Amino acid sequence: MLERIALQIGCIQDTLSPSLNNPTIVVFAGDHGIVKEGVSPFPQEVTYQMVFNFLQGGAGINVFTRQNNIAIKVVDAGVNFNFDPHPDLIHAKIDHGTKSYLNEPAMTTAQCNAAIEKGGVIVQEIFTAGCNVIGFGEMGIGNTSSAAIIMSLLCNLPLEECIGRGTGLNDAGLEKKKAILKQAIANHSFDNTPLNVLTTFGGFEIAMMCGAMLKAAELKMIILIDGFIATAALLVAKGINKQVPDYCIFCHQSGEQGHALMLEHLKAAPLLHLGMRLGEGTGTAVAYPIIQAAVNFLNQMASFESAGVSNQA
Amino acid sequence: MLERIALQIGCIQDTLSPSLNNPTIVVFAGDHGIVKEGVSPFPQEVTYQMVFNFLQGGAGINVFTRQNNIAIKVVDAGVNFNFDPHPDLIHAKIDHGTKSYLNEPAMTTAQCNAAIEKGGVIVQEIFTAGCNVIGFGEMGIGNTSSAAIIMSLLCNLPLEECIGRGTGLNDAGLEKKKAILKQAIANHSFDNTPLNVLTTFGGFEIAMMCGAMLKAAELKMIILIDGFIATAALLVAKGINKQVPDYCIFCHQSGEQGHALMLEHLKAAPLLHLGMRLGEGTGTAVAYPIIQAAVNFLNQMASFESAGVSNQA
Repeated sequence: MLERIALQIGCIQDTLSPSLNNPTIVVFAGDHGIVKEGVSPFPQEVTYQMVFNFLQGGAGINVFTRQNNIAIKVVDAGVNFNFDPHPDLIHAKIDHGTKSYLNEPAMTTAQCNAAIEKGGVIVQEIFTAGCNVIGFGEMGIGNTSSAAIIMSLLCNLPLEECIGRGTGLNDAGLEKKKAILKQAIANHSFDNTPLNVLTTFGGFEIAMMCGAMLKAAELKMIILIDGFIATAALLVAKGINKQVPDYCIFCHQSGEQGHALMLEHLKAAPLLHLGMRLGEGTGTAVAYPIIQAAVNFLNQMASFESAGVSNQA
Repeated sequence: MLERIALQIGCIQDTLSPSLNNPTIVVFAGDHGIVKEGVSPFPQEVTYQMVFNFLQGGAGINVFTRQNNIAIKVVDAGVNFNFDPHPDLIHAKIDHGTKSYLNEPAMTTAQCNAAIEKGGVIVQEIFTAGCNVIGFGEMGIGNTSSAAIIMSLLCNLPLEECIGRGTGLNDAGLEKKKAILKQAIANHSFDNTPLNVLTTFGGFEIAMMCGAMLKAAELKMIILIDGFIATAALLVAKGINKQVPDYCIFCHQSGEQGHALMLEHLKAAPLLHLGMRLGEGTGTAVAYPIIQAAVNFLNQMASFESAGVSNQA
């Protein structure tokens, strides 16, 4: 596995001595109108409250980025709350949350395009500051619903197989979520192009992450892929530019139902299987030292020849 | 997985605020008389040459311990070479390699006891210097043969299922290894007590590692378990003190045939499945940041309550 990652990074950087510079994780936050239909046991306020938690350094992603010397940026992509300026918060709000896609598209085409473009601008700035390895996390109550529909439509998989418990649904809640999402898909009719799917069912954080991935691939950065939501954003990005997965390292297989199938669809073998289901980019942050290990052994490990060790007879 | 590890470490240290202090990996090296029968494609000299490589900082274990700020100690447990003094090498040679156990016991009972005792002394010193988390690696051409026999006899599993390719055997070599080890077992007759098995078929590095694990458990240290050989040493240690596995974190499932079965026998779920088969303690060194992550989230992550985040309705 380490050899495969070292090879991939060497190919992306076109060198036998690759390096990982200024690793950064960008956490995109956005709210989802579908939450009012009852797809999550948590209230929408949790999204903005968790943004505060990120900014105060108390969340899981803060613990793991601090441990592994990864920079963190938090982006308000479309949270239903007006944040005061904060040095660690990037204000990129498209709107105060999406519309409920039960009956109308989650966003307009213009909003979707703006989110994708803004994601690219954010990545360009981080790249210009010297980063060549970037991970994407997210926060958005209700966003496993968006991700499940995106997955079902873009991977052509039955919706039932794509829907999981998100952040702690019980059995009854899971059945309700399935019924709502099934009805939501039935209420829309359009060509399943990646952009149409994203506009109709996406979240602002997912659209912005998609734009961020497209730009990161264009800039030949190493892209660290986290869990269910981030992989859904990648499905859209791949639909727009099929080269994007070549730049991706799949960091962790989420405990969320459906992520295993998503990864299978992408023929991706994730580095870790720790059963986390936290989002925020935590899977990428925890896996990062393994990726460093791959680069380090390629750069630093002696060969049998260079170390004067006898080879096979 | 992180929660389970945090719980285990908290229980071992009897605290809700556990800490990992002065992490250390001890690499035990020893030679094996059985190598002259043709169980490995590599010559015995590779053992001492790799010890030099460890001391020069060029081996895989050096790369990974350097990356993750883990101290490394190299122990001559019984290499067939006389090393000059070196600040990073602990001289604990029991003999210049074991006897070939094809026809006679690998070591005497006195040698086995001396190796176990010396392993304990080494760990006691490291503990006294402030370490509470310790991993064990090994180097010894031919030692997958010892480990396979130990596994077969102590887990009561068919020898065929325990024998793998070691460091690069081809199909013909693998068949030869199986025939030799089968004959070796047939040539001895004794009670399968852990100590008898270790004395008859062990290596000095395996016996010393076993003693090291026994002492580490006695001192309530966190024990990081590496691959096939280290887990074989644990099987012996567990046979002597069945509490030892309670102190163990299983770091990596080796690519060596048999390790998966060994872990299953121990009901152990390893942290990583990277397909490495390098020994040296590399699996523990690469996994260490995941263990840090478990301790860090327990100590540093805010609860929903402390961060002012709303809970489920």
